[in-house]
Amino acid sequence: MKSTIKFLGSLALLTPVVMQSTAKKPNIIFFLVDDYGWADSQVAYDGVQYPNNKRFHTPNMQKLADMGVRFSHAYACPVSTPTRTSMLSGMNSVRSHITNWTSMAKDEPSDAVGGANGATVYQEKEEDVFRRPEWNINGLSPVEGIANTQYATPMVRLLRDAGYYTIHVGKAHWASAGTPGATPYNMGFIVSVCGNNAGLPKSYRGKENFGNTPELWNMSAVQDLTQYYGQDIFLTEAITQEALKMLDYPVSQKKPFYLYMSHFATHTPIQKDKRFFDYYADMGQDEGQSKYASMVEGVDKSLGDIMQYLQDKKIADNTIIIFMADNGGNADVKAKGGILHKQNGPLREGKGSCYDGGIRVPMSVYWPGKTASGTQIDTPVLPEDMFPTILNMAGVKNYNTVQEIDGQDLCHLIVEGSKFVAKTKNGMVPQTISGINPQREILFHYPHQWKITYKPEVDFLSTIIVGDWKLVYVMMNAVEGQHVDPSNGMIPLESYMMSPVPGIRQGALELYNVKEDIGEAKNVAAANPEKVKELAKILSDRLRANRASMPIVRSTGKPVPMPDELL
Amino acid sequence: MKSTIKFLGSLALLTPVVMQSTAKKPNIIFFLVDDYGWADSQVAYDGVQYPNNKRFHTPNMQKLADMGVRFSHAYACPVSTPTRTSMLSGMNSVRSHITNWTSMAKDEPSDAVGGANGATVYQEKEEDVFRRPEWNINGLSPVEGIANTQYATPMVRLLRDAGYYTIHVGKAHWASAGTPGATPYNMGFIVSVCGNNAGLPKSYRGKENFGNTPELWNMSAVQDLTQYYGQDIFLTEAITQEALKMLDYPVSQKKPFYLYMSHFATHTPIQKDKRFFDYYADMGQDEGQSKYASMVEGVDKSLGDIMQYLQDKKIADNTIIIFMADNGGNADVKAKGGILHKQNGPLREGKGSCYDGGIRVPMSVYWPGKTASGTQIDTPVLPEDMFPTILNMAGVKNYNTVQEIDGQDLCHLIVEGSKFVAKTKNGMVPQTISGINPQREILFHYPHQWKITYKPEVDFLSTIIVGDWKLVYVMMNAVEGQHVDPSNGMIPLESYMMSPVPGIRQGALELYNVKEDIGEAKNVAAANPEKVKELAKILSDRLRANRASMPIVRSTGKPVPMPDELL
Repeated sequence: MKSTIKFLGSLALLTPVVMQSTAKKPNIIFFLVDDYGWADSQVAYDGVQYPNNKRFHTPNMQKLADMGVRFSHAYACPVSTPTRTSMLSGMNSVRSHITNWTSMAKDEPSDAVGGANGATVYQEKEEDVFRRPEWNINGLSPVEGIANTQYATPMVRLLRDAGYYTIHVGKAHWASAGTPGATPYNMGFIVSVCGNNAGLPKSYRGKENFGNTPELWNMSAVQDLTQYYGQDIFLTEAITQEALKMLDYPVSQKKPFYLYMSHFATHTPIQKDKRFFDYYADMGQDEGQSKYASMVEGVDKSLGDIMQYLQDKKIADNTIIIFMADNGGNADVKAKGGILHKQNGPLREGKGSCYDGGIRVPMSVYWPGKTASGTQIDTPVLPEDMFPTILNMAGVKNYNTVQEIDGQDLCHLIVEGSKFVAKTKNGMVPQTISGINPQREILFHYPHQWKITYKPEVDFLSTIIVGDWKLVYVMMNAVEGQHVDPSNGMIPLESYMMSPVPGIRQGALELYNVKEDIGEAKNVAAANPEKVKELAKILSDRLRANRASMPIVRSTGKPVPMPDELL
Repeated sequence: MKSTIKFLGSLALLTPVVMQSTAKKPNIIFFLVDDYGWADSQVAYDGVQYPNNKRFHTPNMQKLADMGVRFSHAYACPVSTPTRTSMLSGMNSVRSHITNWTSMAKDEPSDAVGGANGATVYQEKEEDVFRRPEWNINGLSPVEGIANTQYATPMVRLLRDAGYYTIHVGKAHWASAGTPGATPYNMGFIVSVCGNNAGLPKSYRGKENFGNTPELWNMSAVQDLTQYYGQDIFLTEAITQEALKMLDYPVSQKKPFYLYMSHFATHTPIQKDKRFFDYYADMGQDEGQSKYASMVEGVDKSLGDIMQYLQDKKIADNTIIIFMADNGGNADVKAKGGILHKQNGPLREGKGSCYDGGIRVPMSVYWPGKTASGTQIDTPVLPEDMFPTILNMAGVKNYNTVQEIDGQDLCHLIVEGSKFVAKTKNGMVPQTISGINPQREILFHYPHQWKITYKPEVDFLSTIIVGDWKLVYVMMNAVEGQHVDPSNGMIPLESYMMSPVPGIRQGALELYNVKEDIGEAKNVAAANPEKVKELAKILSDRLRANRASMPIVRSTGKPVPMPDELL
């Protein structure tokens, strides 16, 4: 009881911080980078410079982090759409049942190389262990009654209704073509450039019309950039110029704006941004690494250009910038160079995976006059937190939504938390200061096969993180039957089509101490059966409570067991 | 001197009419229909019901004409881009040297099946009589220094700068891809849906993703409509819904808006709008005619839906609607049914041509509280007039432009002119009332070959209209040399690749009395040599003064002669 009172007391204490923003509504820029690894910049998000950090020249990301607060434990879903729809809906992806990326065309599941780019939907085969789960394959919808979507009131619509001039530039990817969620206009954006159902750009090259040529075209050709066709310009630069153009109107009208600057970079295709490539090649990085780094620096320049624009227009002191990535870097693409599956070092694996390489992302927030500069907060934060956080930043209150909001308002964490950190040099902000429990349950669930070949490090994983402990549920390894080796209850990897990763042979439930073992190299489940049991219970309860999408075991016709059923 | 004083006096008298609009800025909707014939509605624009009018059911166009004022002699250029760029720049197309449509890709002349849709640019052949003229093949540019463009301050930018919320929906087609003019955003539009460099929609069908499929795609696939992909919706309907969505923001903000509702219909491809097709088929019209009429009625519904929206939002009494077409109906497309080259009856020929079928277009204006309803004005009006007219309607004054404006402000003609007509029942409004000389010189110049096959009724024509008299200069017939029959100074049609039109064998200078001979069937040049000479002089002087683009005669390397050089 005492702690409850204390908690309520702290909430009462917290309220005034937020109120201040109603006087003069701040502009808000949400700067989102695609498929972008946690260590893929010179910024040390947890205060440690890893070898990867040294490969990148990103002065503007560094500047933003120095001006504001960086997060060492910002998380995103393993793939694009779930993160983006969580941000826009405030819902955890397990509850929205949008757990995978939405394919280009409506009603085509993307699981295991589904309908992407209009290609043939993956047909299940006799030798498959799982059937794909039921999930909202068409993504998020701002309109009720659209099949296979989660209906929600989009955060941006509330911003617009509160007087914000809302601008979308870049990748949307909340829903499949043929549904209302495919266009930013229906999500509450007043103006939109490029945004549609595409999850990647067909080409970054102006000279290739960004994919708009008869040879290249598919649904991921980038729209709205006709003026740059045939020109020697990289997509990152083109959409930055478009974004600045779009800002002119609200700035001239002195309207508060929300700019969703949603870069296509650094998603595949990995293409050279010629402006920056040589620097990395000269440094000795391989071709792929240099290409990828050049794309990263293009994004960095975009951030710098936008910050310069704010200065030029004298609105920098009233503009919040939130910098984030939609999921971890892709560690399964040869074109990025380096060593496959190791590209997100020090983190394990990458995009698609519930290992930290897939879900831990860079994040910085600069809130002029509010954030204590150069601070690092260790409290974990989630994509769905962006919904109440951004609305609170904008002073939008008492709004109604058709959905229940899972995200938590991070404003106190950002403002009071950064001040606490500046004072105490301790990134773990107490809940009494921030309203956020540092031990909050971090849940990610990926009941899908990402690509045509089964990848044990990526596919059919769930995870729950509580403080320093992380449980990973390897669903494939939990299947009973012919594939299971009865001597150890595990699935011989040889049973599946896969690209074998040497040394990986895990049980169904893996436990890591992520504080001591950032690379999740040492499964300590056997030594900590109680912790496994505790986390398995939490994870299972959350999955059950949300009627989570679960793969179906073909041999039994039943869903894979809940993790606690294995114990 | 006396007449000058009188004219100045009338101008002074005119001024107050326009001033009134500054109190409460009116909304303005410019509703533009593509390739749309003068008689292709139930509206009798010159008060006469022609057989063609009876084929169409367009109650909303009729309603608009009845509410406001219709123009019997509204003109547009023979093809799309010159009209559209004249509207946006206020320049006559002869002076801007944008005399033909701009092709999809930069630096590819569209003359004689130039680079449309990325197809091979037409290569001149040994047997060609002409080389294509120099002209601004890349169209209009709001930025200086872009090769092969006319640089101009776009009217919409001035509207925006004056506080108008400017919305573009539909076809743009002012400039080629790869130049700034390819996108409405650079022309002053705050928000844009679909607008780019395309001159036509690849498909009107939502089920075909409006051309966005691997099989169909080319640069004329319609952008920004991903949400409708795969759905059974016609493009006309989709962009109307988008337009109404875009209006919600300025209406909610009580901002005056300018909506450029620029329909793709009724341009090719001629496709059935299923909602309306049966009515026409049941009437006994052929398949093509019924398809075309269904597209027209789709446009009519769009107009009706927009008018209904204005009612619902209670802004109808402060919203001006200008209805117009960008050129005459296409009379050279089999898919429209009927008889080729006769589809614009009672007018001769169609799109591309300087005969009236190509240049005389429907036009109505409703200005609440200002236009006298149900009136018909016979004073000729031009596309470039839209520039000063719309700015004056919006109360925008003292603006600066980099270009000289050729267009004349029609506000007095519309307001005082319609009242004069209502009173006198005489559509010829005196200049003292309107500021517009009813005998003003109407000039159109098409020094191009439209399609791969030479068409004497369309290609290489100029015209000057003054009052009831119209001179047509048939450039091909003016070429001296091997192709000319010395017995009559004319070119035997057999000399050219062409689809022969029976009975057409004209001299180089044709004269028509368009009041008595609306179909331009009787060349009365021989009987009126003085009128021919007078008009040839006016036309030639205008062409010379503007250094007009003229085809080059291959055999001599010189431009075709000016019309007065033939006499």
